[in-house]
Amino acid sequence: MTEVGIDAIEIWTGKLKLDLPNTFAPAKGEDPEKYTKGLGLNASSFPDTYEDIVTMGANAAHRLMEHEGLEPEDIGRIDVATESSFDNSKPVSTYIAGCLEGVYDGKFSHANKGERKFACVAGTQSIDDAYNWIKAGRNRGRSALVIATDTALYARNDPGEATQGAGAVAMLISEDPELVSLSTEQGYGSADETDFLKPNQQFPSVDGKRSVQVYLARMREALEDFEGVAGRARTEDFAYIPFHTPFPGMVRKAALFGYRRMIRDTQQEEELADEIGRQPREEAFGVSGQGPESSGTESHADEEAYEEALNEYMDGLKRTDAYQEWYGRVIDPTLTISREVGNWYTGSVHLARTSALRTAFEEDRDLAGERLLVGSYGSGAQAEIHAETVQDTWERKIADLTIDQQIEDRYDLSYEEYERVHDVHNHDIESDLDQGEIEQFTDPHGEFVFDGWGRMGERKYRFVE
Amino acid sequence: MTEVGIDAIEIWTGKLKLDLPNTFAPAKGEDPEKYTKGLGLNASSFPDTYEDIVTMGANAAHRLMEHEGLEPEDIGRIDVATESSFDNSKPVSTYIAGCLEGVYDGKFSHANKGERKFACVAGTQSIDDAYNWIKAGRNRGRSALVIATDTALYARNDPGEATQGAGAVAMLISEDPELVSLSTEQGYGSADETDFLKPNQQFPSVDGKRSVQVYLARMREALEDFEGVAGRARTEDFAYIPFHTPFPGMVRKAALFGYRRMIRDTQQEEELADEIGRQPREEAFGVSGQGPESSGTESHADEEAYEEALNEYMDGLKRTDAYQEWYGRVIDPTLTISREVGNWYTGSVHLARTSALRTAFEEDRDLAGERLLVGSYGSGAQAEIHAETVQDTWERKIADLTIDQQIEDRYDLSYEEYERVHDVHNHDIESDLDQGEIEQFTDPHGEFVFDGWGRMGERKYRFVE
Repeated sequence: MTEVGIDAIEIWTGKLKLDLPNTFAPAKGEDPEKYTKGLGLNASSFPDTYEDIVTMGANAAHRLMEHEGLEPEDIGRIDVATESSFDNSKPVSTYIAGCLEGVYDGKFSHANKGERKFACVAGTQSIDDAYNWIKAGRNRGRSALVIATDTALYARNDPGEATQGAGAVAMLISEDPELVSLSTEQGYGSADETDFLKPNQQFPSVDGKRSVQVYLARMREALEDFEGVAGRARTEDFAYIPFHTPFPGMVRKAALFGYRRMIRDTQQEEELADEIGRQPREEAFGVSGQGPESSGTESHADEEAYEEALNEYMDGLKRTDAYQEWYGRVIDPTLTISREVGNWYTGSVHLARTSALRTAFEEDRDLAGERLLVGSYGSGAQAEIHAETVQDTWERKIADLTIDQQIEDRYDLSYEEYERVHDVHNHDIESDLDQGEIEQFTDPHGEFVFDGWGRMGERKYRFVE
Repeated sequence: MTEVGIDAIEIWTGKLKLDLPNTFAPAKGEDPEKYTKGLGLNASSFPDTYEDIVTMGANAAHRLMEHEGLEPEDIGRIDVATESSFDNSKPVSTYIAGCLEGVYDGKFSHANKGERKFACVAGTQSIDDAYNWIKAGRNRGRSALVIATDTALYARNDPGEATQGAGAVAMLISEDPELVSLSTEQGYGSADETDFLKPNQQFPSVDGKRSVQVYLARMREALEDFEGVAGRARTEDFAYIPFHTPFPGMVRKAALFGYRRMIRDTQQEEELADEIGRQPREEAFGVSGQGPESSGTESHADEEAYEEALNEYMDGLKRTDAYQEWYGRVIDPTLTISREVGNWYTGSVHLARTSALRTAFEEDRDLAGERLLVGSYGSGAQAEIHAETVQDTWERKIADLTIDQQIEDRYDLSYEEYERVHDVHNHDIESDLDQGEIEQFTDPHGEFVFDGWGRMGERKYRFVE
């Protein structure tokens, strides 16, 4: 059967920049390296006063449609993934379609529109829905437009404040895709977790420590589940492994866990044994092997001993040349965009994939036919892992991306300006935007902007030439 | 290829009843027939103090799993459709899975969980996602659990207050389904409309008159789109036509529009011509034929003349024996549950299907192999139309439904009690529930109940034996 996957991709960043080492850290009286080294972040993208999830999503989608020469007639499905929604009934996809209909002759009246929510994993779930729709033979030759858009803002002075971000990733899902095809095989790791949530609130409640554990546990389950259908994953099977990236430091941790798992019982483990020993085995400690948040029946002491041995092994593994080389080649290239823009929630794993492909493009690497292993994650909590195969035509889908220029062009906020614009986007603070009292920091052109509220409380938009 | 569709269905109503003619109308000083005849509603279901979208959804799903003898291992996907969500990040499906894991030995760690939002059409969208997932060969022999759950509450004294409702419909989507199979063919009618929305608010803002027009316009587009792939739909092709039912009066209107369209240019139109004339043609009035909310280039006068002629024809059509007989046979049986429980938003069209099948079962009608035309709708706005084929085994999937008993067992609220419990469910009113100061009206047994809030503001649940 025909291949289905991502045919094209476009990225739109929020137009403001919060510099973490030079603006945020000094204002907080903290060491800049807490951000650059600890979290692995240089800056966050932030939305200007006229930007929101609709404008960023519509602008990414518009640019994608222009680049690909598409008309509304070519699109059979518009799905938006977000955890920053501002309406409990009307989906963001209808607002975005309304924007696009303002600049195209055609209408999207034939297109199934939707909205998916599951923290940061919903972007990948929406791609899957589109993939399945095409594979089920229901697309009538049309493609799907999947838009992952979020304003990932935290309450002021929340520990997550430094990992904020804002932006949208638009992806076209088609038969015979020109960028990557998706595997039928998928692995899931899913559980009812209270690590990150937004109960009737705009900004999240986060249990940061728990959230890291849950990320690793669900990702491990998803990898096991994936291997159950796709066969064992080896370190050399994949050119890049893009993970969901709440901040690059999280991916550093996840990559090490993944590498350890992938080399277990292989020649690679044996080759490293002289240097760091073999991996500690659960059986030897009398534990069930359920990883970083086991709830098995083993004794606490056994578990602690096993965890200690594991940590020691991981510390050693991290320093080996083999791991360092692999990390630098397979993981680090997925983090270059994230480092400059922060967490985009639903868009983050798709930034990671793009980051890797762009690196390969810049290095003039022949990537056609190579495979990616993509690890998506959403708090609450669920991980999904699937494989992708890079298509022969991938380079021309990456060549024209403008994300570097967009990052460069952002307005660099002072701390006082940051405080002001954060309030503008806070739904609980009565905004002066209607009165035009808050000035925008950048000038929009050739893009959709927020244009105030309508009589039923709906947000309105217009296109600025 | 194998058929995919609805294998089993289960319904859970909110346990309180607001009697519209006998309790609501007198308190409002209004004619009871405004509700019973105008809207076509006798009562609304309302959630008791310990009920919400999670408990109702989990209870419907639990009953379905018990009836079908399923374990978590058999379920590969749990999708919840709702427009009553209380968390902007963590999906309701994780809460429901958490409840179910409390009463089963197995876990749903392998199951893809999600949440979909598009007003009332998201339940059908979730069924489609599940159908496509199976057709795409990704289900590994497992079924999908789709749960449409809503507390469809309005602000006090809102015109929509009488159409409230609360309940959940759980459906199992499987290969070789035992209830109905779904057509690959679908029709859509979709537009960016501001008829009903909930911008950062629990209760909707509604433009009632516009909402009726938009329902009819989108449904007409969806039927045209469906006919474009499935061929023309005739009145005798379908045993029942379940529509989304915000209130039965809306369906009376939609059915008449649908019937007119289906008999156009057929022998049926000719046979009725002596009695009521032929249908007015758009061409004869110089209008574009875009129906009840046309935005074509025709003059206003032309359009008015056409609308007048159309209304006159429809008035006549409604009174013909042919239409009355068809309506009584094909449409009216879809409304029996709705009349007693009000609007369940995402669940409503699935109540309509069930209502029809139950009528056929009670009449001992041989329905195997017959077809249904199902018209779903969500404000904002989108209609979807597809066909379903009743399976040979349908009767044993309908025989054990307990919805009549559940409706009968509801606690009949006084108006004062209704006012009190409405406040309990209002997110903007500080609840006394934590202090145990609000008494429940019914006693739960063998079901999941709300059990207060956790330390991160999450809602907690427990099973009551």
